[in-house]
Amino acid sequence: MLIKIINPNTTQSMTKSIEKAAKKYAGKDTEIIAVNPVMGPDSIETYYDEYLSVPGVLEEIIKGDREERVDAFVIACFNDPGLYAARELTSKPVIGIAEAAITTAKFIAPCFSVVTVLNRSKHITKEIIRKYNAQDYCASVRATNLSVLDFDRCPEKGLEALAEESRKAVEQDGAECILLGCAGFVNFVEDLQKTLGVPVLDGVSPAVKFAEILVDMGCRTSKILTYGFPEKKQIIGFSDILKKLWD
Amino acid sequence: MLIKIINPNTTQSMTKSIEKAAKKYAGKDTEIIAVNPVMGPDSIETYYDEYLSVPGVLEEIIKGDREERVDAFVIACFNDPGLYAARELTSKPVIGIAEAAITTAKFIAPCFSVVTVLNRSKHITKEIIRKYNAQDYCASVRATNLSVLDFDRCPEKGLEALAEESRKAVEQDGAECILLGCAGFVNFVEDLQKTLGVPVLDGVSPAVKFAEILVDMGCRTSKILTYGFPEKKQIIGFSDILKKLWD
Amino acid sequence: MLIKIINPNTTQSMTKSIEKAAKKYAGKDTEIIAVNPVMGPDSIETYYDEYLSVPGVLEEIIKGDREERVDAFVIACFNDPGLYAARELTSKPVIGIAEAAITTAKFIAPCFSVVTVLNRSKHITKEIIRKYNAQDYCASVRATNLSVLDFDRCPEKGLEALAEESRKAVEQDGAECILLGCAGFVNFVEDLQKTLGVPVLDGVSPAVKFAEILVDMGCRTSKILTYGFPEKKQIIGFSDILKKLWD
Amino acid sequence: MLIKIINPNTTQSMTKSIEKAAKKYAGKDTEIIAVNPVMGPDSIETYYDEYLSVPGVLEEIIKGDREERVDAFVIACFNDPGLYAARELTSKPVIGIAEAAITTAKFIAPCFSVVTVLNRSKHITKEIIRKYNAQDYCASVRATNLSVLDFDRCPEKGLEALAEESRKAVEQDGAECILLGCAGFVNFVEDLQKTLGVPVLDGVSPAVKFAEILVDMGCRTSKILTYGFPEKKQIIGFSDILKKLWD
Amino acid sequence: MLIKIINPNTTQSMTKSIEKAAKKYAGKDTEIIAVNPVMGPDSIETYYDEYLSVPGVLEEIIKGDREERVDAFVIACFNDPGLYAARELTSKPVIGIAEAAITTAKFIAPCFSVVTVLNRSKHITKEIIRKYNAQDYCASVRATNLSVLDFDRCPEKGLEALAEESRKAVEQDGAECILLGCAGFVNFVEDLQKTLGVPVLDGVSPAVKFAEILVDMGCRTSKILTYGFPEKKQIIGFSDILKKLWD
Amino acid sequence: MLIKIINPNTTQSMTKSIEKAAKKYAGKDTEIIAVNPVMGPDSIETYYDEYLSVPGVLEEIIKGDREERVDAFVIACFNDPGLYAARELTSKPVIGIAEAAITTAKFIAPCFSVVTVLNRSKHITKEIIRKYNAQDYCASVRATNLSVLDFDRCPEKGLEALAEESRKAVEQDGAECILLGCAGFVNFVEDLQKTLGVPVLDGVSPAVKFAEILVDMGCRTSKILTYGFPEKKQIIGFSDILKKLWD
Repeated sequence: MLIKIINPNTTQSMTKSIEKAAKKYAGKDTEIIAVNPVMGPDSIETYYDEYLSVPGVLEEIIKGDREERVDAFVIACFNDPGLYAARELTSKPVIGIAEAAITTAKFIAPCFSVVTVLNRSKHITKEIIRKYNAQDYCASVRATNLSVLDFDRCPEKGLEALAEESRKAVEQDGAECILLGCAGFVNFVEDLQKTLGVPVLDGVSPAVKFAEILVDMGCRTSKILTYGFPEKKQIIGFSDILKKLWD
Repeated sequence: MLIKIINPNTTQSMTKSIEKAAKKYAGKDTEIIAVNPVMGPDSIETYYDEYLSVPGVLEEIIKGDREERVDAFVIACFNDPGLYAARELTSKPVIGIAEAAITTAKFIAPCFSVVTVLNRSKHITKEIIRKYNAQDYCASVRATNLSVLDFDRCPEKGLEALAEESRKAVEQDGAECILLGCAGFVNFVEDLQKTLGVPVLDGVSPAVKFAEILVDMGCRTSKILTYGFPEKKQIIGFSDILKKLWD
Repeated sequence: MLIKIINPNTTQSMTKSIEKAAKKYAGKDTEIIAVNPVMGPDSIETYYDEYLSVPGVLEEIIKGDREERVDAFVIACFNDPGLYAARELTSKPVIGIAEAAITTAKFIAPCFSVVTVLNRSKHITKEIIRKYNAQDYCASVRATNLSVLDFDRCPEKGLEALAEESRKAVEQDGAECILLGCAGFVNFVEDLQKTLGVPVLDGVSPAVKFAEILVDMGCRTSKILTYGFPEKKQIIGFSDILKKLWD
Repeated sequence: MLIKIINPNTTQSMTKSIEKAAKKYAGKDTEIIAVNPVMGPDSIETYYDEYLSVPGVLEEIIKGDREERVDAFVIACFNDPGLYAARELTSKPVIGIAEAAITTAKFIAPCFSVVTVLNRSKHITKEIIRKYNAQDYCASVRATNLSVLDFDRCPEKGLEALAEESRKAVEQDGAECILLGCAGFVNFVEDLQKTLGVPVLDGVSPAVKFAEILVDMGCRTSKILTYGFPEKKQIIGFSDILKKLWD
Repeated sequence: MLIKIINPNTTQSMTKSIEKAAKKYAGKDTEIIAVNPVMGPDSIETYYDEYLSVPGVLEEIIKGDREERVDAFVIACFNDPGLYAARELTSKPVIGIAEAAITTAKFIAPCFSVVTVLNRSKHITKEIIRKYNAQDYCASVRATNLSVLDFDRCPEKGLEALAEESRKAVEQDGAECILLGCAGFVNFVEDLQKTLGVPVLDGVSPAVKFAEILVDMGCRTSKILTYGFPEKKQIIGFSDILKKLWD
Repeated sequence: MLIKIINPNTTQSMTKSIEKAAKKYAGKDTEIIAVNPVMGPDSIETYYDEYLSVPGVLEEIIKGDREERVDAFVIACFNDPGLYAARELTSKPVIGIAEAAITTAKFIAPCFSVVTVLNRSKHITKEIIRKYNAQDYCASVRATNLSVLDFDRCPEKGLEALAEESRKAVEQDGAECILLGCAGFVNFVEDLQKTLGVPVLDGVSPAVKFAEILVDMGCRTSKILTYGFPEKKQIIGFSDILKKLWD
């Protein structure tokens, strides 16, 4: 089985970390390819970043579906950018890491907190939780106010800040599980898990596993209406890849 | 890996069907044991039935956790009877088939309908959907008004009624995925899938797969507060098994 | 009129306290019998405890309905264990003390807080408030983190802790009414009421009064569908009482 | 105990019907006085009517509280006009018939429908159900599209239309209890109950009983903040009664 | 175009302030008349005040519609007293300042806080936010606990208290926009805006602008059902103005 | 004042229609420029289309903000594509036509229905209504199942289908206002309004007016946190325009 992980930003080092996390629990028979788009921002912290990442993500979905014989897709950014559009472009399962993390948390804890990067991303994170109707399970959304780049430059400081906010989420907000609200945090899961005493989840590993089992069960996206393939139309100014949809 | 499926009712033929469905997509390394409690009703269609099934379910959880080296549990009735209590009794993952079916549907369709047995069960089914905050994804709950026993006696008639209500759910209510709201329907999945043109899901197969991947990832139920092991207390009038919790 | 109060746990001293509270405001023509099941846990603080208490509660419902000429029932634990199942087993009104307390609070205050026993019970209490769609009226759920047993052993300390948390609910959370989230707290109502300056409600007294007036008005549980008597089926491994349902 | 029923409209024949319904189940020791304001509309079917009825209702609350030694109040119109204001003006319990009917329905049925007068009142009724967070319990709101006056002129036709809409609510909408959404319908309860096979509730009788038991239990409106007595201020252009509040 | 602003309380100095705020951004072709009723309370801080203000407000609506050739109306109190009734009485647009402020905030910020007068008004303000389904956009409701009169007597102290609570709303509650929850605060907008760093909105200016554009676009209140003109009925004890509705 | 209307699709004839609708009620001092992006799909009916339209929309926002001295923006597609991202890119007001239509409807009617193009777009439309928390005001979403192109090719047939679905929305679903759920429907407003008897709203006209008044009042998007300008980062593979943000 071939699962394609799409890191929606264009930072290859992050793609590598995500790939590593994706492989960690992947099945023996699962092949993982992790890519990032050739267009888009180098990190995703705003709505602007999110929207600019989507065309590149969708290109990778189409390529994966038409050329690469991919069996399932994972979109590896906590905003799940372009998820519903991706489901239109292929009948193969597509999983977002925010929905994967939230889903997993609900299986093992009565409530969770999300710890994210910048303060400005807190509202965006709350929106996605509300979009998935999970607000009743959410104890709080907290931010370290360090950027993705800050984490890259100084992982120790990043880990410390994550641990601090996670601890507050548990002690002050009553969180019984911590979700890491950025795909760039996958390297911190184990260290955090050790000190916190509650499950700590990134979304990448669960998303891969959900993708695997949907393939195993032969589940495909419902094509009857909302997620049906888009009708052919003229698209201007993007690469030809996006038009391959109708080839 | 050992996964224990608990059919909460005492009808062994149904336990067999469930076991078969559970094995259908189970991994190579997964061993499935399917049991039913030694106490409780022979089918679950009312709140009464549901509550009488729970002590037996919890016995099986405790036995599985203490004596049988079980790695994860599935509770195989669409009411998910005793699910949160089960999570208190073990740190191994416990999955209910209603939550498994709903979770899977959300991965592959924008909305679903549930088709269930008796008319009287419709409200109970709506309650569980509301409990999981999934009402915004639910196009309708429909019933065949045949009992579990009716389905057993005359599966052809049952299948026909299920197909009819499922078709109405798709055409009149806008359902883009059908969930079978009774563990006894696992044998009908494939026939329905063929004729309906939308994904048809029972909860048993996905629940097994969710259990597998939680084990694969080393996920355990958060024990920090709500789902912590119950404090020791005196229990009267049940079997000794329920007291093993504190041995 | 005969009202049967069922204390779902097996601690007789608590049954006595509850009986006293039940009688406090009962009408002249109301006879109260307070019982506890012969099976189940000696206190209810977890989902596990709650589910183990239900079969015994339902036995008492059936006995009351078939043998004791009971006119209405009260289930006297703040989790309202087995309430909807009880409504299936009799057409006589059945009231839970959580719904009774919440209902009363809404008549006299714009919002309330619930003060409960263990921290681990807070989430369970929040769930029942959400189940009754009363979260918009709920200022907070607070816990003393003393067990039911602690309260029994040292009532003074218990009262002090209750007063402290209630005071915080009023001053910090904006509660305008306090609900005591455990049937074991009935003895503390008056002391708390004096010092807090807001109404303090246990659920037992209001539940008895609601039961009385439903009987007075000839109101019976709607038997048309969801709460209809369960269809006869085979039940294994419980006492014969639970099968009396169909005699 | 003295309970004052305020019919918010100025139609005395309706006040008489309401009084009769109020006395039907009132306790032996309960004295009922039923009044209507000396100002306001002769029936309430619009927001306009509702607001014009409130000052007169509040006059009757103040008179009852200051001069008449009333123990509790009932506002007998399904819009519960002025209910929260009334709670500010007295510490005696004040109950609205919509909240009383909805509360009673929740004790005996999993869901209800409301049958009301004009089509134009349906949205107003939906709003009050939403205000009380009871929409999840509401199967439908239906209207006969007869006015209050039509019912007065031709009760047979009114009863027939009510029966027809109630029947549809049960059969098509799944209602398991019928609430009569107008205080003028109190005379139809028994006839409807006979033919429908589900409980039929007007709000007047339950409101009286709720008032009685709040008095019995010594419950008073929480005066700590929101429902505290209004601070004295200058009021122009109303009768002196409304200013008695500060005498 | 003629827009009539109705200050629902009877304090003329406040009417003057409101008029000034209304004119601040009014179009060149817009004529503003600001009035207050001849009946009602001199400030609105409770449900009691609110209800007593409505008949006078509705008189002004009717006069405006029938005699003054008004093109649109604004009800200038943050409770929007009588808004839906006013929409029944005229087909000209009627805007409340709470809905205007909330609407404007949603156009320019992801979430807002409301700062109001007395602590006791906080719950009333929360209710109106919930009524408009805006609770997901509301970071907090805060109060200065100064009365309308206090603000009048000592505006400097009032401004200071408003600034303090607004600052806390931004820093502690995460508000990204401040709404002034009292029409009497219109004079403070600019001073607050300077110091806070987030948009500060009173509802009066936006309400006037919304009224203007609805007139510009020829939008009129839908008269098909709920907001249709009230059917003629007898009204006792109010001024003749209220009956002009049917002349 | 200069308002820039961005038609997110690349069909210039639709841009012309939208421009005409935008100018219809624009103020004397308002200059309208209507554009469409140079990249993206020629119509928007799916999530795929929506996401591909956003980069071009954002280019136009940036150009408008940096080079064209635009005072406010309107995004003229009922999905409001990229709205929150656009608010990050400029401090000038940005209005979407879905939010404008819904907002206007709430000022003049208690509930509305949306009539849209393809059946497959119904769920997308429901999602945007839920995103804005307006589901309680929404009577139904209906579709003609004609594509944007069909409407272009045969407007008469389109009008007929719109009229038919709108009529059903009013008569069967209780809609008291009709929203046209596609910017391409602006030409049909007047014809529909005449026959339906309820207000018919496109979102373009109101969006322009909302934009105008926000400019008039000096309202700017709150830049304190969520909608702050994006931090500079590297963007690959898009035009230079999208990087102008940081020039």
